[in-house]
Amino acid sequence: MTQASPSSARSTIRRHADRASYDRELVHGILDAGLVAHVAFVVDGQPFVIPMVYARRGDRIVLHGAAASRLQKQLATGVPVSLGVTLVDGLVLARSAFHHSMNYRSVVVFGTAKSVVDPAEKRAAFDALVDHVVPGRASIARPANENELRGTFVVELTIEDASAKVRSGPPIDDADDLALPVWAGVIPLPVVGAPPIAAPDLRSGLVPAANEVAYRRG
Amino acid sequence: MTQASPSSARSTIRRHADRASYDRELVHGILDAGLVAHVAFVVDGQPFVIPMVYARRGDRIVLHGAAASRLQKQLATGVPVSLGVTLVDGLVLARSAFHHSMNYRSVVVFGTAKSVVDPAEKRAAFDALVDHVVPGRASIARPANENELRGTFVVELTIEDASAKVRSGPPIDDADDLALPVWAGVIPLPVVGAPPIAAPDLRSGLVPAANEVAYRRG
Repeated sequence: MTQASPSSARSTIRRHADRASYDRELVHGILDAGLVAHVAFVVDGQPFVIPMVYARRGDRIVLHGAAASRLQKQLATGVPVSLGVTLVDGLVLARSAFHHSMNYRSVVVFGTAKSVVDPAEKRAAFDALVDHVVPGRASIARPANENELRGTFVVELTIEDASAKVRSGPPIDDADDLALPVWAGVIPLPVVGAPPIAAPDLRSGLVPAANEVAYRRG
Repeated sequence: MTQASPSSARSTIRRHADRASYDRELVHGILDAGLVAHVAFVVDGQPFVIPMVYARRGDRIVLHGAAASRLQKQLATGVPVSLGVTLVDGLVLARSAFHHSMNYRSVVVFGTAKSVVDPAEKRAAFDALVDHVVPGRASIARPANENELRGTFVVELTIEDASAKVRSGPPIDDADDLALPVWAGVIPLPVVGAPPIAAPDLRSGLVPAANEVAYRRG
């Protein structure tokens, strides 16, 4: 695990430092592989966490919720935000209950959220969100029109601090437990799409793109 | 979508109310199906979100991090917490970029975290965490001993408020877009384990349990 550009106290991971990293490439890779971010912010001392679709654009993250909810409007007021993305790559089954674990890649980002209002930026964010979920899809789908862009609430944050944490590999049991008659190993959990289901009102003669049929996250 | 036991303002979902629910059975079902929770709390006005393994025990949620980090110790001091669990069931590809969506089940829980110190409660929480990830595994693995339990940091919160949000089904496009030559439908994303990988130091003659070979989340 590499550690580059040491970060501020709030993102310093004190325990399992061997699993922590501030490597920009690693952080970006995990963000690009995830689908949903959990975004935390504070309103009147109360923490809120909401799941949002996101996309990375360089050192910025654009966020989109289902609609302009009260909470998402709060996000746009320039509040400090902590954003978490976690990929569970596998379940780690040890002989001992204690050494059970998960193989995962996670990122926690700190930044300040603000609303995206510039129409060109909003369109670019919109395309990034669509392409983040299905690469290339923004150029296949009918682009958002002016009304739709106006009705879309997009928030952006610049990554001020970030830390990544990764576990991989087999279980690590105590030497005394290795002879126990308990199966140990890893159950991988790849994110792989099942065969696509066409919309009931799909006109005939259309097929999904290759990466929609064999969908897989990195 | 059902709505039972209307909740307080903090968990009221204002938009897409058709997708919101306070149904206890639905909330519990989503919590039981998830693997990782994103836990948000506030330290000196700064929001933090950390991923944690969790398990539901009735109306309580037990949480376990990799080790007793600074942040997890903060959690144990009786702070207000917001906890999010999101399952992405599928990607919803519409003809228009605007109507792209995800099929998902998500829960946001509000509560107050506290440390679990009673040894019996701690053991029960520990078993619940192991069984949450792989049902039945706690009775297969070598149980935690006293030292391991002492070294395990478990936090618990009682669900004070919760809301669930669910989207399912095909894309819903504008009537004007139905004739576009763009494939539309859903890419399902079931959480299914790949074939288990035995630990390199596994003694011979052991095989994984049936639900470890054919692993699947609800």
